[in-house]
Amino acid sequence: MDDPVPPRRRAGRTERVLVRRIGGEERNGRTPDELIVEEPLTIRLDGTMVTTTMRTPGHDFELAAGFCWTEGLLGDAAILRCRYCGDESPLSTEYNVVSVETGGRAPEPTPRLGTTSSSCGLCGNEAIDELTARLAPLDVPSPFPVDLLAELPARAAAHQPLFDRTGAVHAAAVFDRSGRLLVAREDIGRHNAVDKVVGRLLLDARLGPGSAERAAELALFVSGRASFEMVQKAWAAGIGAVVAVSAPSALAVRTASAARLQLAGFARGGRLNLYVEPGGR
Amino acid sequence: MDDPVPPRRRAGRTERVLVRRIGGEERNGRTPDELIVEEPLTIRLDGTMVTTTMRTPGHDFELAAGFCWTEGLLGDAAILRCRYCGDESPLSTEYNVVSVETGGRAPEPTPRLGTTSSSCGLCGNEAIDELTARLAPLDVPSPFPVDLLAELPARAAAHQPLFDRTGAVHAAAVFDRSGRLLVAREDIGRHNAVDKVVGRLLLDARLGPGSAERAAELALFVSGRASFEMVQKAWAAGIGAVVAVSAPSALAVRTASAARLQLAGFARGGRLNLYVEPGGR
Repeated sequence: MDDPVPPRRRAGRTERVLVRRIGGEERNGRTPDELIVEEPLTIRLDGTMVTTTMRTPGHDFELAAGFCWTEGLLGDAAILRCRYCGDESPLSTEYNVVSVETGGRAPEPTPRLGTTSSSCGLCGNEAIDELTARLAPLDVPSPFPVDLLAELPARAAAHQPLFDRTGAVHAAAVFDRSGRLLVAREDIGRHNAVDKVVGRLLLDARLGPGSAERAAELALFVSGRASFEMVQKAWAAGIGAVVAVSAPSALAVRTASAARLQLAGFARGGRLNLYVEPGGR
Repeated sequence: MDDPVPPRRRAGRTERVLVRRIGGEERNGRTPDELIVEEPLTIRLDGTMVTTTMRTPGHDFELAAGFCWTEGLLGDAAILRCRYCGDESPLSTEYNVVSVETGGRAPEPTPRLGTTSSSCGLCGNEAIDELTARLAPLDVPSPFPVDLLAELPARAAAHQPLFDRTGAVHAAAVFDRSGRLLVAREDIGRHNAVDKVVGRLLLDARLGPGSAERAAELALFVSGRASFEMVQKAWAAGIGAVVAVSAPSALAVRTASAARLQLAGFARGGRLNLYVEPGGR
């Protein structure tokens, strides 16, 4: 299920502007600079709008599918197809809405954390309880070798062309236990990058119901921090290890512990900090 | 209007965990590490829930007030008071909901970009058009001196104690034209950090209707990238310059241009790139 839009009709992922550089040698005059493109994408599930996110265009079906799945919106339903809203009317906005379709088999979208209406809000532990009610703890057969986890940032670096050009994107990548990269994506939004890699594997049936590869034996690399939502997405996808270049939050550590998911942070230069080991801390 | 909660009853902003460090000298055993706290905060405006954000506890009234204002939810209404939901019932969740009250003078919350229900979504230029319909272009009397803008990252660095301890937070700070820091805040969410500094100045009546200082002569420093939403918040607050340590997005540059707001990126080591100069590019 690839994006069906011919590349020439897609919005570009970078844009060139002229910039005045201050403090260097060329104090006057303008030089070209390449910027990352940021455009809104609205995601619908069976006709109901579920979110609008600011994203870098491209891999939009992966983003929409990954979002719906990792946010727990699909239930047990399979995705039948993804499509752009404007398939029949070529307007400028036609590629800013993606519909994920399950033939009405997905549950009616319920208030998520982001839109909770509970009378006195949630605390972080209650947010974890919500996940625990929906997701079973992972059954990771054996820990991902830490030496291999420590190598993932360097292995992912070769797959970050947009970062090299713009310095403004986050990357996510999924690796198997031999250290082979399955998929890598970049996006201006760090959650979007995760949704895109997970969505790609879901659309290829390599994750999700009937997946050919055991998700718990995969590792998710993220180029930034490990926040609650990043760990939540890995857990929802069943991925057994998360490696972040930057720090985890305290809630992310508690969430990874509840998920029995291996969590490493500050993965740089061959080193890392191991916050949660499989089976809990 | 300071947060009325005694410090001892507030959630901490950092938490200590034990961590196993891999790749260094101490291969076995666990050492302490300090993590940033991330907890949900639900914001209500006159009783209607408007958002839930993952934030670092503290300065919650500033965050709620700043969010409502920079997202255009207040209209012309003044904030009468902010309060925690659970003022009268000391539950664990009582500090996870803040109500912003205008006595019903704020407009009924309308669908924002994040919750748009327009049939075919928005493109980035339409998002700018929405802002232009609501916000006048800024009238910046003269450009912020670029040499001073280039110094702001170093001046802000002294006010980032949580980053020094956890490596996991974003900072925002507002400076006047003499380079004096008015307020600085750190948060796990980069938008939250901006809302907290703007909210503080709003609650002190130094920004907003009848502000004592001319907002257009202030500069906003952000420790990360300049995305669309960061520039939108500065514009809504009337702040004349934005300086980001990392890259702007293409849409942020177009938005700053529509706002006639000075936009600098890659502000590091005394250098910066000037993307938009006052009065447009």
